[in-house]
Order: sequence, then C-alpha cells, then structure tokens
Amino acid sequence: MRPRPLNEMSASELARGLAQREWRAEDVLNACLDRIAERETLIGAWEYLAADAALDAARELDRGAVRGLLHGLPLGIKDIIDTADMPTGLGSPIYSNNRPRSDAAVVASCRGQGAIMLGKTVTTEMATALPSRTRNPLRPTHTPGGSSSGSAAAVADYMVPLALGTQTAASLVRPAAYCGIVGFKPSLGKLARAGVKSQCETMDTVGALARTVADAALLVAAMSGDRRLLELDSPDVPRFGLCRTPEWEQAGADTRQAMELAASGLAAAGAATRALAPPALDGLSIVQAEIMLFEAAHAYAWERQFQRELLSPGLRQMLDTGLAISHEQHERNLARAELARAAIASAFDEVDVIIAPSTTGEAPAGLESTGDPLFCRQWSLLGLPCVHVPFTSGASGMPVGLQVIARHGHDRDALRAAQFMQQRLAQA
Amino acid sequence: MRPRPLNEMSASELARGLAQREWRAEDVLNACLDRIAERETLIGAWEYLAADAALDAARELDRGAVRGLLHGLPLGIKDIIDTADMPTGLGSPIYSNNRPRSDAAVVASCRGQGAIMLGKTVTTEMATALPSRTRNPLRPTHTPGGSSSGSAAAVADYMVPLALGTQTAASLVRPAAYCGIVGFKPSLGKLARAGVKSQCETMDTVGALARTVADAALLVAAMSGDRRLLELDSPDVPRFGLCRTPEWEQAGADTRQAMELAASGLAAAGAATRALAPPALDGLSIVQAEIMLFEAAHAYAWERQFQRELLSPGLRQMLDTGLAISHEQHERNLARAELARAAIASAFDEVDVIIAPSTTGEAPAGLESTGDPLFCRQWSLLGLPCVHVPFTSGASGMPVGLQVIARHGHDRDALRAAQFMQQRLAQA
Repeated sequence: MRPRPLNEMSASELARGLAQREWRAEDVLNACLDRIAERETLIGAWEYLAADAALDAARELDRGAVRGLLHGLPLGIKDIIDTADMPTGLGSPIYSNNRPRSDAAVVASCRGQGAIMLGKTVTTEMATALPSRTRNPLRPTHTPGGSSSGSAAAVADYMVPLALGTQTAASLVRPAAYCGIVGFKPSLGKLARAGVKSQCETMDTVGALARTVADAALLVAAMSGDRRLLELDSPDVPRFGLCRTPEWEQAGADTRQAMELAASGLAAAGAATRALAPPALDGLSIVQAEIMLFEAAHAYAWERQFQRELLSPGLRQMLDTGLAISHEQHERNLARAELARAAIASAFDEVDVIIAPSTTGEAPAGLESTGDPLFCRQWSLLGLPCVHVPFTSGASGMPVGLQVIARHGHDRDALRAAQFMQQRLAQA
Repeated sequence: MRPRPLNEMSASELARGLAQREWRAEDVLNACLDRIAERETLIGAWEYLAADAALDAARELDRGAVRGLLHGLPLGIKDIIDTADMPTGLGSPIYSNNRPRSDAAVVASCRGQGAIMLGKTVTTEMATALPSRTRNPLRPTHTPGGSSSGSAAAVADYMVPLALGTQTAASLVRPAAYCGIVGFKPSLGKLARAGVKSQCETMDTVGALARTVADAALLVAAMSGDRRLLELDSPDVPRFGLCRTPEWEQAGADTRQAMELAASGLAAAGAATRALAPPALDGLSIVQAEIMLFEAAHAYAWERQFQRELLSPGLRQMLDTGLAISHEQHERNLARAELARAAIASAFDEVDVIIAPSTTGEAPAGLESTGDPLFCRQWSLLGLPCVHVPFTSGASGMPVGLQVIARHGHDRDALRAAQFMQQRLAQA
C-alpha cells in the first residue's frame, strides 16, 4: 500500500511530525509543489508562487531549531494580505507588481511560528463579489466561492495544508462550504488587521481555511498568539441551537436537508438541541450590505477616484452605489448593528453555540458568480466567531455543511462544537 | 500697512478666496514654501517636501475648475499615512524610501476635493511615545508634543494651513495644545483608516490640525464627505459640563487655572455650566495604556520580530511589554472599555459637551519627551470626538487650552461648542 502523501495529511499531523523530525519540511513542501505542478493549470488557485524561496526556508528550518506551532508548514496567503517577500496584487491590475515593505501582522506571526510562505492565493477583484479565474477543485466547472477563492481551492485540493483568508460578508465560510473544507472566521477584533487591505472596518476579519477544525484552530492560534484555542478536547457535550435565520425561505433543499441531518445526528450523539429564532437577526442582512457598500466606497477612495479606468465596471458601479448612501443612513445602520450585537447575547442563554446555514446550497455551476453571501451576512455584521463544518453532500454530489456560531470572544466554544459536529456527523 | 501674508490666513478664508479666484493656488503655495524655507531648519516639521509636484498641482488647479472643499489648499500629511506620490517613512529607518502604491483613503478624499499634498510631516518613531527632532515653533527649546509632531508644528508655524494627524492616546490633542492650535479627533469610526499604519485598532483615529475650529471642521468634512460638519453656526448656546477627570491631581497650576477661566468665561458668555464627575472614567487611563501596548505589540509583529535591530531600544521594550500582557487580561480590558463606552452616554444627559484638561500644562522644556498623554487616554479609549481649543497661556507664556468632548457620533456638537469657546474665551 502506498503511504498517504504528505500533502494530504492534516496540518496538525504534519506539525507534530515536523516538530519531532519524523519528516523534513523540504519533503512536505515538495509534496505540495508536486500537487500544484499537477493541478494548478486546471484550478488556478495561485497568484504568485515563491517555490525557490520556500525551498530555502524549508531547508533552513530543517537545519535549525523547531520554531513554533507552524514549524515547516507551507501556507497560502490571500493576495490582499501584505507580504514583505512577495507581491500583493489585490486581484486588480491597479496593484500589479505591488511590493509592500512589510508583512501583515498575521503573516509575521505565522512566520515567527515557523511557517513557510509558499505563495499568494487568488482573490476576487479587491476582495469583492466579482468572480476570479479559480475553479472548484471538486468540480472545475463550478465556482469555488469568493473572495478567498484561491485559499479555499488550494487547501481543498491538497496543494497546501492551510491558507489565510478574510471575510467581510461571506468570504471565508462560503468558499469553505463550496469546496468542502473548514472555514474559521474568528471573533471580530481577535486578529490584528495591520497590513490587510481595508474594505470595511466594521466587519473585515482575517481567518483560516483548513481541512479539519483542529487545523483551523492551529492557524488562528499561531496568528493570534492565543494558545487557548489549541485546547479543543472537552468532556462537555455542547448544547446546540438550530437557527434557520430569517432568510430560511431562500435555503435550497440541500441546505434544508443538512439542517435536518444535523438535528437528528447531534441528538443521536447525545447533544441537546433546540430551535432558535433570535429576533436580533431580523433585517440584518440588508443592514450588512449597506454598511459594506458605504465603507468600501470610502475605504477605496483612491481607487474609485484616481484608478477608475482600471476598475471593472461592476466594481465601479458597486463603489458608486456605496458613495450614494448618505451619512445619516450609515449612522442609522451602525446604530442598528450595535443594538443587534448587544441583543444577540441572549440567544446564547441556553445554548453554547448556534448552528445555521452557510450557503443556500451546493456551489453553483459556472464561474460567473461566486454564489450568494446571504446566509453569512448577519453573522459577519454581528462579529461572532463562525466555523463552517462540511459533513454531507447535496443532490449533485457537491459538499454541503453548516456553520457553528458562538458568542463574541468565545472562539474556542465555536471550535469545540465544530469539532464535535465534524467527528459525529461527517460521512464515512 | 503690509497685507497679511497668505500663509497666515485661515484655511477657511483661503478656501473661499481660492474658490472665488481672488488669489491663485500658486501664490498660496509660494507663501507657504517661503515660510518653510525661512523656518524649517529651526523647526524640523517636514520629513519630505514635494515642492515641485505641489507647484505643478497648484498651477493645474489654477487653470481648471474648482474641485471641491479644499481647492488649492496645501496640506501636510503625517508620515504614517500612505501617499501614492511621496514616500511614507513612519519615523523609522525600517521604512526609509518606502513608497506605497496608493493613497490612504483620507488622502485620496482630500485630493479629490482639490487639496495639494505639500509633503509628509515628521512623526515620532512608528507614532509612539519616543520623541522626534521637531521643535515647538513657539519656543524651539520645547517639545511640540507627539506623535503628530510635524503636523502640529507646521500648522502652528504658518507653514501650511492644515495638516492630517492621528491619535491613539494623545497624538492630536497634545501637540495641538503644546503648539497653541486646534486639534480635532473625530469620533472613532468617522474616518476610514485604510492606508494608515495600524497601531491599535481599538483606538487609532485620523484627525485634523488647524488654526481655527472651522478649519479643522473643513478638513474633516473633506476627509469624510460629511458636509454637516460645515454647519457650525447655531443660535443655541451649548450646555457645558466641566470635568476634572480622575487624574485631576496631576493637573498643573496652568491647567487648573484654564478650567477656572473657562468656567467663569463661559458663564459670562451666557452658557450653562455644571461640574461633572462621570464614574465611567474611573480607572480608564490604565486600561487604555494596556490595550494600546497589547495591540501595538501584535500590530507591529513584523517589525518586532524581523526588524528588531532597527527599532529603538525604547520601542523594542514597549513592544515586549505589550507582548507580555496576556490574552485574558486584554479581554478583560476590552470588556471594561465596552462597559465604559456605554456608561459614558449618561454623562451627556444634561449637557451637550464636556470640557476637560488636554494636558497637564504647558509644553515641557526639552526635546527628550513629547509630554504626558494622561489627560487624553480616557477620551481616546471612549472613542468620543474631542476638539482642543487654545485660549490662554501658562506661567511661562506658552499656550494652554482645554478639550471639548461630545457624545460618540456627535462631532458637530463638539465643533460648535469648541467654536463658541474659541470665540468667547480667546485672548485678545
């Protein structure tokens, strides 16, 4: 029997073996590079690949002391996150050959923990809704979702064990769902955003794409320095609230079935479940959309005014729409968001986590759209930690899952419950 | 009688005359450049001066249509704010010759309103407490304060009518106070921070340095696009709460006298005043200091780990101190801040604005320190709009004033009350 290739092992397994010198960082990296060589033409996950620099870094790590949590693990970095040794292109010709002086704070933290920066992954244009060239590795005629398209595809396709992404509306959870992997959006404020292109300060959040919940926790522990996130084993069985959200009418059959499966599967696993319909969610998805449009129009003031001809017509229109939202309306929206952030706390009075849809259903066919962010908007606005867990498949055989949501600041609760779900509900 | 030189006129006067073509942008700029040529060797306000590009821009503005609120006004930009056409050095050798691809959002907004980017102003090292070479233009043996040192000195010395700065602890209000000008820190969230070096997301705020309250309002109206800030005339007399703050014991005689003068002067001007001691302020200055240390250590992860030898020993130590603060402690501090932000609202139940000390007293002698940020820490943490108003002088003849503070989001209330104070209390 052929041993399992290194590029298919989980980040946690790899990290353990690397720290114990069971295998070399160079070998892990070569397994990833082989996979990329085989598949990249089809998938289009990478904007920039620093293979030679990564090999140098791997050899140096193999020679030296164990550096930290990510010793020897190759990472993909969404191309809106600054890197001192690679270009940062933001999915836009405006930023072709853009070379930031410094690493983003999260990149530097990973580097300090021994990670190898393998390359920059494809993002949609300026991390907005407009699609990228990346294909879904599970079915290349389908979108991988966006805007962390390349990060999700690279991890799902075993090109790299872990990748960094960001979410403002749905950009971690949705591509994770469409590609059948884990996406972890930590609590708003958990990770420093220094060096990450700012689109919407009210919601922009750095997070992790990984193949297991423990791997996602490992990456965010390294980025934040908060090692409490590594303690996922707990004898307590989480109490789950099943929340169909006010957008339930737009959930497709596959998502509805996933909620049924989760309810029965979790009950069978001995977990308490109850239906929840927090009033705090009402109307939030439109508030989220307007806040994002307004803030993007202001944050992208330079591109909107002085690089207009290099923006796609769709993004130009989106920014103009945002600029037309009045300051009064934006203030009302922020006030609504603040009230909702306070009110959602009571939804957790009798449950540890909420389970809710991640997407309307499977990844849509075609590359013209990255899919609907609808089911992520409200949680992004609330700033709560969300973990997408893949555990079933839809009518056409593509992956479907749900997201686990915890109180603000209770990221470990979200991860523990997500791990419980992943272990109890995952298909054989 | 010699006519008043253009560089000594207020930004509002200049903008009016420029829009009406009473004078040319080129003449305004030349007046500023003459002043800089005369004084810069002594003052050291500028890190980079783009005189030729500014002259080109001025001539183009003189030939074309009136662009907007800042048509033809030369600006100084604190050197932690990105500019597409000038280096951004962050007061650190780590960033020498650093050329960002794009303008920060606030810079692009000013440019779109017709402003001329004259140059980058000196900041302390990475916008922290360590002093810069800039001297106080009122008395060059004294500090101008920090970290927006060059912006405050340039405006106070009539080198430029307006300058952009930022505040995390005291970096707008303190240099404004020491240099005898107006400093306006808008509500947290009012201005996009895209393209501004991130030190502490919980508090970093972009703001204005100007010689009049109306000028500061003009600049923030241009940066934000919120024209309501231009409506400062109101028949209503503001109700003032006089707040000595829990740090009062550390206020010097000059600051104490300023509070007395304000109380009597405002009462004489027909304004209602009352003493306030909001319990929400208790203990906040230490919470502010710890949050800032923790977040700076994480935001500056790259510099701290990978450019360590280019950091000053003081900054290195500051970042190490921040890194030693535990995640648990940081979460407790953020929770304290959130409670205080909610609790401070009731302080405004019967007043429109609060008046509080800006500094312990006059600018200290020497350039070894930028002075004590103590009296600004709590207001920075609360995220409230603050306007420093200079209106008297201290025992040694250097300027002293106070800050006017309004509810979050009520920036115009702060500006209106500040203008009332400036008009009624300013020395003849």
